[in-house]
Amino acid sequence: MVGGGTGSFIGEVHRMAMRLDNQIELTAGAFSTNPAKSRAFGAELLLPSDRIYDSYVEMIESEAMLPEAERIDFVVIVTPNATHVPIARAFLEAGFHVVCDKPLATSLKDALELREIVQASGKLFVLTHNYTGYVMVKEARAIVLSGRLGKLRKVVVEYPQAWMSHPLPNEGRPKGPWRADPAQNGPSGCLADIGTHAENLARYISGLHIAELCAEFTSFVPHRRLEDDASLLLRYGSGAKGILSASQISIGHDNSLTIRIYGEEAALTWRQEQPNELRMAGINSPEQILSPGHDYLSEEARRFTRLPSGHPEGFIEAFANIYREATRAMRGDTPAVECDFPTVDDGVEGMAFLECAGQSARAGGEWARMPKL
Amino acid sequence: MVGGGTGSFIGEVHRMAMRLDNQIELTAGAFSTNPAKSRAFGAELLLPSDRIYDSYVEMIESEAMLPEAERIDFVVIVTPNATHVPIARAFLEAGFHVVCDKPLATSLKDALELREIVQASGKLFVLTHNYTGYVMVKEARAIVLSGRLGKLRKVVVEYPQAWMSHPLPNEGRPKGPWRADPAQNGPSGCLADIGTHAENLARYISGLHIAELCAEFTSFVPHRRLEDDASLLLRYGSGAKGILSASQISIGHDNSLTIRIYGEEAALTWRQEQPNELRMAGINSPEQILSPGHDYLSEEARRFTRLPSGHPEGFIEAFANIYREATRAMRGDTPAVECDFPTVDDGVEGMAFLECAGQSARAGGEWARMPKL
Amino acid sequence: MVGGGTGSFIGEVHRMAMRLDNQIELTAGAFSTNPAKSRAFGAELLLPSDRIYDSYVEMIESEAMLPEAERIDFVVIVTPNATHVPIARAFLEAGFHVVCDKPLATSLKDALELREIVQASGKLFVLTHNYTGYVMVKEARAIVLSGRLGKLRKVVVEYPQAWMSHPLPNEGRPKGPWRADPAQNGPSGCLADIGTHAENLARYISGLHIAELCAEFTSFVPHRRLEDDASLLLRYGSGAKGILSASQISIGHDNSLTIRIYGEEAALTWRQEQPNELRMAGINSPEQILSPGHDYLSEEARRFTRLPSGHPEGFIEAFANIYREATRAMRGDTPAVECDFPTVDDGVEGMAFLECAGQSARAGGEWARMPKL
Amino acid sequence: MVGGGTGSFIGEVHRMAMRLDNQIELTAGAFSTNPAKSRAFGAELLLPSDRIYDSYVEMIESEAMLPEAERIDFVVIVTPNATHVPIARAFLEAGFHVVCDKPLATSLKDALELREIVQASGKLFVLTHNYTGYVMVKEARAIVLSGRLGKLRKVVVEYPQAWMSHPLPNEGRPKGPWRADPAQNGPSGCLADIGTHAENLARYISGLHIAELCAEFTSFVPHRRLEDDASLLLRYGSGAKGILSASQISIGHDNSLTIRIYGEEAALTWRQEQPNELRMAGINSPEQILSPGHDYLSEEARRFTRLPSGHPEGFIEAFANIYREATRAMRGDTPAVECDFPTVDDGVEGMAFLECAGQSARAGGEWARMPKL
Repeated sequence: MVGGGTGSFIGEVHRMAMRLDNQIELTAGAFSTNPAKSRAFGAELLLPSDRIYDSYVEMIESEAMLPEAERIDFVVIVTPNATHVPIARAFLEAGFHVVCDKPLATSLKDALELREIVQASGKLFVLTHNYTGYVMVKEARAIVLSGRLGKLRKVVVEYPQAWMSHPLPNEGRPKGPWRADPAQNGPSGCLADIGTHAENLARYISGLHIAELCAEFTSFVPHRRLEDDASLLLRYGSGAKGILSASQISIGHDNSLTIRIYGEEAALTWRQEQPNELRMAGINSPEQILSPGHDYLSEEARRFTRLPSGHPEGFIEAFANIYREATRAMRGDTPAVECDFPTVDDGVEGMAFLECAGQSARAGGEWARMPKL
Repeated sequence: MVGGGTGSFIGEVHRMAMRLDNQIELTAGAFSTNPAKSRAFGAELLLPSDRIYDSYVEMIESEAMLPEAERIDFVVIVTPNATHVPIARAFLEAGFHVVCDKPLATSLKDALELREIVQASGKLFVLTHNYTGYVMVKEARAIVLSGRLGKLRKVVVEYPQAWMSHPLPNEGRPKGPWRADPAQNGPSGCLADIGTHAENLARYISGLHIAELCAEFTSFVPHRRLEDDASLLLRYGSGAKGILSASQISIGHDNSLTIRIYGEEAALTWRQEQPNELRMAGINSPEQILSPGHDYLSEEARRFTRLPSGHPEGFIEAFANIYREATRAMRGDTPAVECDFPTVDDGVEGMAFLECAGQSARAGGEWARMPKL
Repeated sequence: MVGGGTGSFIGEVHRMAMRLDNQIELTAGAFSTNPAKSRAFGAELLLPSDRIYDSYVEMIESEAMLPEAERIDFVVIVTPNATHVPIARAFLEAGFHVVCDKPLATSLKDALELREIVQASGKLFVLTHNYTGYVMVKEARAIVLSGRLGKLRKVVVEYPQAWMSHPLPNEGRPKGPWRADPAQNGPSGCLADIGTHAENLARYISGLHIAELCAEFTSFVPHRRLEDDASLLLRYGSGAKGILSASQISIGHDNSLTIRIYGEEAALTWRQEQPNELRMAGINSPEQILSPGHDYLSEEARRFTRLPSGHPEGFIEAFANIYREATRAMRGDTPAVECDFPTVDDGVEGMAFLECAGQSARAGGEWARMPKL
Repeated sequence: MVGGGTGSFIGEVHRMAMRLDNQIELTAGAFSTNPAKSRAFGAELLLPSDRIYDSYVEMIESEAMLPEAERIDFVVIVTPNATHVPIARAFLEAGFHVVCDKPLATSLKDALELREIVQASGKLFVLTHNYTGYVMVKEARAIVLSGRLGKLRKVVVEYPQAWMSHPLPNEGRPKGPWRADPAQNGPSGCLADIGTHAENLARYISGLHIAELCAEFTSFVPHRRLEDDASLLLRYGSGAKGILSASQISIGHDNSLTIRIYGEEAALTWRQEQPNELRMAGINSPEQILSPGHDYLSEEARRFTRLPSGHPEGFIEAFANIYREATRAMRGDTPAVECDFPTVDDGVEGMAFLECAGQSARAGGEWARMPKL
């Protein structure tokens, strides 16, 4: 693991998710750019001191020199956005698979470069768009693929949060939170942080690709440098339409990623905060509430459930489902293409979305076309 | 009453709402452009035959000749949109108050003309934007006015319905439904039918006025002539932002008008299909569910409740609240400006919204400015 | 109307319900045992002064002397429980139909006597167990009758309210609330007030009759003379089992009548506070949410709906459905037995339930058998 | 671990819960009474072959001979109910801490004996009443302890499931499911399996102890030997009252453990299937929805949360919270009495509850007193 030390929420999430299925052991890491902090944190994790590194560069060098059976199989990158690409590149070039937090990069150009590196490396690149790991998201995708919705007409995906409604501690100061600093976070704020999850989730379930969009960015909190609210209208290539919103000033919402997909014959609704419910509605039939652990679900949904029906599975379990598929692919028994995890291609499309949205927003909300990828 | 005969859903709603509080008696009507149908329907309502008219013109002439104590106090217009203005004008000019269904007109120009006529007449004009009659909508407005949300930042208002997901019976044929015919319905489809309710509700609760908007219209059902789905981004004059959507192809939604209003300090959510719940959230406090009949509510909300807490009040009761305030104003004891009902000004702003949205949509989603009113 | 004057919640509910469908006109009344109050209240209702009476006795005498076309068709009794039987008896014997609030009486003996009087009179007796008037309750009953649940196994019906959690104003004093006074209210408290609704609703939907029960009564509020909480275990004659609870000290519940019915193959849940949802669950199929206005509903449910789907109907509409069926029966076109309203038999069974429960509770929770009726 | 091999749902739950916090490593086990199956399963878990045992007896002998630093610290017992006591006794007497699945035993006598053994051993005994591990259950308990509910009046705890609505595969046959066999399961069916969770949860949150109860058991499925539905009325020692129900024939419920606690001033509701919501209601204040990750929660609730607000934690996380506290106690830094996990005393009270309920049910629903413990 690179990054994810003290104070990192997502680092610990990755570790819990990795442990859940007993398939992955964390054996080495560079947990901070501050070597002392890295060592202290690695010790807390009970890692042997010779596998705790002062930097990711040192980590690559040392690990690469270990016998194949002992060295790490893959690296997990949980660092600020701007460092994803250089770190990923270094590990890929050294022959390691990479699991990387989203967003992939801070520019489309970097993302495209990374894609080339991944392709050249022959290694796996896994982007942790973890919300696609939920069981009922798998079911939603399976239902769309089955054709039961008919041709898709409309997607409404929202990701409201409240936590940036007021200025963050030290926001705008030199030692302030990296998410509020364009140099570390990249040029987009809440759309990069959570809007990319919304875009990815909508694409994962619907299979639709955005062709054009119109974006309105707002920074509601005074002196904030990046947008804390983004609203977009979408035109999909298929003729479907969409609304996508991401907001970190929406009081009352902790982490309320929600998607609704409307087809010609039926529609689906899923909410991350009640992840074990998938609502399905048809024409002249009662609304249905689907939940995990039942025989009426698709094989895909059943494959990702760990507990009997009525035993709630949450965020960590969904996250672990990404790792489950990634390890299946790394083990090599199953072709990677048959394993269900987000790849560098998802990251590239996400970065294209971010750049296209930024371009539209800067032009005062003019419609912008997604670049060819 | 003019219109509202056999087959009219909204005509019967008006009649039930008028009866509820025992303040209004339906005494005369021209219920159809077909005199025989009008007479048959009036007879069903047990009206005396000399108060059932062949046309609204005949009705005005006859009623105006009755002694003041016997003639109608006001007329209710529940006809296709394109006829609202001429009928309203005729009654106003004959000295009658008017209650009229929304949308006010089929063009802003007509709406502005009607406003002048109303002002010149000295009569009351009541537009039945009935959703503002719900108790918890009154409470939402009172909370905004109290300042408890802080400065408003964002409004998300949605009005999805499913009933036009497939072609309507006879849609597009000569005797087809008037809603699908631009000549009778006006140039806008679902935005006129239900989007104006959404715009009105948002304005009623928030007090915000739209300055600019960007609209995307779609006709998903083949051969449909008017939009059955509309998505808009809004910029309010105050700096707040908004998303407004109206759709009649959203399967799973019967009549799901929903509004969320986010301020700097707190936020509100209200759903028409669960009208007796108002959710309020703050920063670092648990979400609250407010409901009618409680002492913690504002005086405004308590004033419009008819039942003790826990006894659900619905659509008809909310509709009747518009009539309750309208009759209070007509009685003249309370200045009309202190009575809480939608007026011709609401109708004018609604028509401006429709025209502005139409202009944006026709221009491919360019931002358009609301006209000066 | 007898009773239902100033301060009566239920009197105004009856009046609104009667007005809703334009089938009933309130023409006469004795609204208080205090003649001056009765006259003042009748005047508020715009009744002619010669139809406002000082007492129900005077009312019967005067109305009976009017020509048949002018006199009342039926009386509505909305007085404290202990007076239901004598007033009903007097009107029945004078040849008027009777609509009466629940509970029917304050003893089973009185109830049985009244049943004989009803039978002898040939007049209709309608008991306003209004919760059976909800559309989705009609649907629930239709589903049970259709056999889709299979043989019924278990009924769980609860009626929690909060409003008596603290002492009522003047409770226990001479001029205190009649509900807290056994002389006016009868020997049972919350079980008579709301538990009888629960018993009636369960019987209406399920068709099951209680054979034996075990009751635990508690008066939680100090010095309260009647129980404010009752919990019962039920054994039905069919072998099904039940739990019934009624409580007026359950903080958080305004009027939360809720019923769940489990059969061998499927189950239903309905909540009065969300009356337009009926949940149905089967084995290995997703839970379904049924709601009014849809073609998938039974004819019975569709017959009682006044609005399109998604337009909430509430307490008054349900109440009016009792009147709708009562007037259908009074008109005589349809045999009363084919009209769907609660009768004196329902009242008798309700009183037997109350007495049986009281007997069990007084015996420290011993099981007691329902009397033969 | 003893038991928990192929086909065991709860064995895998224990293993996932143990892994989550990186504090526990599974190092040895006897996973089946069939040695070959035990070995095969241990190999799947990647255990070294010399730590996979043919029987728990062999396991104790071998582990006890290992150096202290290598041998197991504690054992997890996940076997059919009837074997809990002998296995636990053997490990305790050999000086190992014990984590054991519920119910503790199949008779109160055995439970009391085990309690003596635990006390004599000086070792820890942890009973996995896992539902007490949920964050919002911790909060509920903290709220009760804070006195914010006032004196408690009523507890309603329900545990409905559907999975035994039809006969289980092979139910009643020699190789059928152990849960349906009194010899392996003990004399009580659904009350032992899930009713004990309900009793424990109610006691954990409320702090109330049952004094008397009245129980009605039913076996709805033909030929089933143990009750599949149990309904109980409770009298607590404090004067509070309760309703407890457990059912495995309640179609529509996967695992719907739900508790409501009513005090003089406020009330709480918690549902296992939406575990991250705790509803709190007061008198004349809006209902509140509390959820994890917020500063307004008690220190106890915050201590058990692993994720930021809005990131759902589920069954495994709650289960892991039992292990977290158990390991804290085993480590010895914190006195066991300050650690928050269910103990042998909870198991004894649960068995007393089961026996008392069985006695009442067999006596036709007579009230029975809880034995002195």
